[in-house]
Amino acid sequence: MVDEATEYTKRLVVPALENVLYQEHKVLDHGFVRVIDYMGSDASIVQAARVSYGKGTKQVSQDAALIGYLMRHAHTSPFEMCEIKFHIKLPIFVARQWVRHRTASINESSARYSVVENEFYIPEACDVAEQSSNNAQGRGNPLTSEVAQNVIGMFKDNSDSMYASYESMLSDGVARELARMTLPLNCYTHWYWKVDLHNLLRFVTLRLGSGAQYELRAYAGKILDIIALWVPMVYAAYMEYCFESKTLSKSALSVIRMLLKGEKVSREDVGMSKREWGELMATLYPDE
Amino acid sequence: MVDEATEYTKRLVVPALENVLYQEHKVLDHGFVRVIDYMGSDASIVQAARVSYGKGTKQVSQDAALIGYLMRHAHTSPFEMCEIKFHIKLPIFVARQWVRHRTASINESSARYSVVENEFYIPEACDVAEQSSNNAQGRGNPLTSEVAQNVIGMFKDNSDSMYASYESMLSDGVARELARMTLPLNCYTHWYWKVDLHNLLRFVTLRLGSGAQYELRAYAGKILDIIALWVPMVYAAYMEYCFESKTLSKSALSVIRMLLKGEKVSREDVGMSKREWGELMATLYPDE
Amino acid sequence: MVDEATEYTKRLVVPALENVLYQEHKVLDHGFVRVIDYMGSDASIVQAARVSYGKGTKQVSQDAALIGYLMRHAHTSPFEMCEIKFHIKLPIFVARQWVRHRTASINESSARYSVVENEFYIPEACDVAEQSSNNAQGRGNPLTSEVAQNVIGMFKDNSDSMYASYESMLSDGVARELARMTLPLNCYTHWYWKVDLHNLLRFVTLRLGSGAQYELRAYAGKILDIIALWVPMVYAAYMEYCFESKTLSKSALSVIRMLLKGEKVSREDVGMSKREWGELMATLYPDE
Amino acid sequence: MVDEATEYTKRLVVPALENVLYQEHKVLDHGFVRVIDYMGSDASIVQAARVSYGKGTKQVSQDAALIGYLMRHAHTSPFEMCEIKFHIKLPIFVARQWVRHRTASINESSARYSVVENEFYIPEACDVAEQSSNNAQGRGNPLTSEVAQNVIGMFKDNSDSMYASYESMLSDGVARELARMTLPLNCYTHWYWKVDLHNLLRFVTLRLGSGAQYELRAYAGKILDIIALWVPMVYAAYMEYCFESKTLSKSALSVIRMLLKGEKVSREDVGMSKREWGELMATLYPDE
Repeated sequence: MVDEATEYTKRLVVPALENVLYQEHKVLDHGFVRVIDYMGSDASIVQAARVSYGKGTKQVSQDAALIGYLMRHAHTSPFEMCEIKFHIKLPIFVARQWVRHRTASINESSARYSVVENEFYIPEACDVAEQSSNNAQGRGNPLTSEVAQNVIGMFKDNSDSMYASYESMLSDGVARELARMTLPLNCYTHWYWKVDLHNLLRFVTLRLGSGAQYELRAYAGKILDIIALWVPMVYAAYMEYCFESKTLSKSALSVIRMLLKGEKVSREDVGMSKREWGELMATLYPDE
Repeated sequence: MVDEATEYTKRLVVPALENVLYQEHKVLDHGFVRVIDYMGSDASIVQAARVSYGKGTKQVSQDAALIGYLMRHAHTSPFEMCEIKFHIKLPIFVARQWVRHRTASINESSARYSVVENEFYIPEACDVAEQSSNNAQGRGNPLTSEVAQNVIGMFKDNSDSMYASYESMLSDGVARELARMTLPLNCYTHWYWKVDLHNLLRFVTLRLGSGAQYELRAYAGKILDIIALWVPMVYAAYMEYCFESKTLSKSALSVIRMLLKGEKVSREDVGMSKREWGELMATLYPDE
Repeated sequence: MVDEATEYTKRLVVPALENVLYQEHKVLDHGFVRVIDYMGSDASIVQAARVSYGKGTKQVSQDAALIGYLMRHAHTSPFEMCEIKFHIKLPIFVARQWVRHRTASINESSARYSVVENEFYIPEACDVAEQSSNNAQGRGNPLTSEVAQNVIGMFKDNSDSMYASYESMLSDGVARELARMTLPLNCYTHWYWKVDLHNLLRFVTLRLGSGAQYELRAYAGKILDIIALWVPMVYAAYMEYCFESKTLSKSALSVIRMLLKGEKVSREDVGMSKREWGELMATLYPDE
Repeated sequence: MVDEATEYTKRLVVPALENVLYQEHKVLDHGFVRVIDYMGSDASIVQAARVSYGKGTKQVSQDAALIGYLMRHAHTSPFEMCEIKFHIKLPIFVARQWVRHRTASINESSARYSVVENEFYIPEACDVAEQSSNNAQGRGNPLTSEVAQNVIGMFKDNSDSMYASYESMLSDGVARELARMTLPLNCYTHWYWKVDLHNLLRFVTLRLGSGAQYELRAYAGKILDIIALWVPMVYAAYMEYCFESKTLSKSALSVIRMLLKGEKVSREDVGMSKREWGELMATLYPDE
């Protein structure tokens, strides 16, 4: 029996994604990711690649192998043939990083047209961490429970008092576009975000990377789960050839070749920085 | 009764576009435009606009009026929320102009992977015209039937002999990527072309304009017909506010204001060029 | 005598822009626009257009006329041949609107790497206005001096207390990327912004428009002044054909034609909305 | 003494690039690459990165090390801060691949406005190769001298006869936009091409890759030489971290880890295809 909200279509359909369409996947304390619409599937990528490579292509290649080949050789254009649209609720400081991905379409709720809702991101104690000592852009160890609770209290108080100030200005008749200036960056906003699969994978790569802020990684992780539902062959190829791959520099490759020959090689021999050498050793000997 | 090729979806569906999905709409002698997939409808634009403008929006505005408002004020981002994918067969010289629209995704049949088919665009006699005398980029009057037939004969002979030469090289074992160099620009190619509605409307505006070459206008016209099926409210707003609108310069506006006051005004008074003045008069007094 | 900071170049040079290079043009209370680098001049556009239109072009057309022609007919690609790079200091809520122009390059100061400075935008009393009654997104009349002073006081107090809270968190060792979440949207940031002339003109058109927020218009106006120094021919054509032009809909054109024939025509005859009709009348009879 | 063609500028200047400004670097038989203008230098990238990472950055890092860091961690936005403009003459079939790089600005000579010149790419005998047997898109071994000369003769004859046919149509008064349809794809065109350094490096990576056609690689190689003159620090980092790097898949990394432990591992153990395994072995043991 057909759900009364469904209709018939001749387009490609992905049942696993239909199952979660419009559902809110919770992120952080008040945020969410919802799939609103999509276009295409694994089959669209194969179809587009076969248009390009046509009769010359050996037909024996199966779809998954073809997708793996495209991913491995950075033949990215077929991945642009799939499109997805999300409705996302996120804190403004996260939105500010997100929007740096320019190859996407956005319609954001406007604080000039509408009154902003009283919702603010307050981190959990375990996420309140100190400034990293070796990573200028990141977080290090969690702070003590006492400091964390204190910080959480400040975020809460600040959010409450700034929202009260915002409301007070509005009731004095101040224009919304002015009053909103006093809201802090942990205030939530929401938007429609539409992007093709190639650019979505780039987003995930950069925003699930260790350099990204935890709060943005939380969204990127949820989106990766959705990709697995939508285009499972692409997901598998992505994990193998991108997400869990490493790009090794000319020098790093020469180190590996020497090691495989049984030669000794030191950092100084190849002129690598301490950080690069450390990263290479962590890649080659992860258990040590 | 449901066609056996259809499936159920919870996404927005446009029955009028479903009706023509995958069908070839013929263009020129061997070309076509086929809709392969689409995402969204008039309702998607309204939905995106309401996310942006939210509770502040007067709810009395009907969907068509809201779409008209967006179109009139160049609020273009909601129109990016609809996406469409075409399969298009077109001569290479048309493809060369088409591809200048960069905000779109393309997968083209590759003449490095596949043998190019023996199909060439040969114009009809009525389309074989002389160089325009007043438009450096365009066509003027049709040539005489005799010259036209002669020209058509040359196009046919050239196409045949170049294709024979191409085949001969291939049978000598020459790489496809080299042999294809001898094919002329009226040879057909085909591609998948995926674009959002905002950029599609820009394409139609520029490529149905009087400055565009006839062979490209033929494709743009077919695409405009498809837009009318897909998003009828957008189509109506587009015809009113864009396609049949005129942008009048500061000087042109001052001319109109003087004329409406009953004042006399000449080209020299406002310092317009002859061409500009002619265009303005043609806009204001189309019957003269 | 050559300034010791200058060097010789064979590239196109625009002396009027060189004169203000690196200078801070003040905007709002703490903001600025500075030109850091540029590429090309009016001559670059002419040069690019002549590559495209080549020998077929009538050489009699002077450069300014050619630029006017390109502007009038939306031949936009030659305007992409000029590039400019700014250093801009601006409040975050302005930055959030600015960044919606995607065809540009940005390097923004990161509040994850650096401690944010204690600088906040506080509007002047004359700019503290009430919510517009007929424009859901904008400002209406100024508020009374008393209310304005009160609002200004709130902005100041909020900025001070949030910055104190921010500093307190930092001194507790909280990671910068977390602590910055409590800063309000009137906090200043700064960035390098690099864009081509075509997209810069689009920015000015949209952000000097009546729909844009005053604080963003202030920046757009300063940028328009810089364009006048940089590419004076483009500036003149832009003012004539874009900035002070109007796009008239199909219906508006039919109204004008009837009026010029001396016929009576009412809003109802052509089915225009009250707002559209009002805008048309204001365009045609600006003195009434 | 200053060359009379030079002027003074306060902008960043790169003397090594100034030396070759406007010079034609020959490519293929009639093609060339000429630098027409540029903006920025290695210093611009450092400057942009320091705006982003600001006071938190350890000032001890030297410029070259910072550029290496940015390249290694795919912090691509500072590389967008440099821009370059080329004048390029190239065969149409090369132009058709080139234009797929969408993040660039182009003004191409128009065959609608101007008469196309009688210049065609004719390959040298050593470049006339057979279809590759293991690479569907590429060239394999050179053909015999006899076949090569025959093929070259066909390209020459075809180019001559098609150009004669083109001229004949033009002298019959046929519109240029029609007559040019009969020109083959080895006909030369020329254009202005303006691009930022980030996208230029992507172009070089893809178009110097082994998958690219020889004729396009010839242009990409010349451009890489120009990059070395313009931004030598970026060039060095690019060679180390991109051009001569390899991205190793999850499975490839596990193979290397096993090999370094002295374990035996076969292709079947990790489920790699023959082609992938072959590529990995060639990377690890290049001398075998």
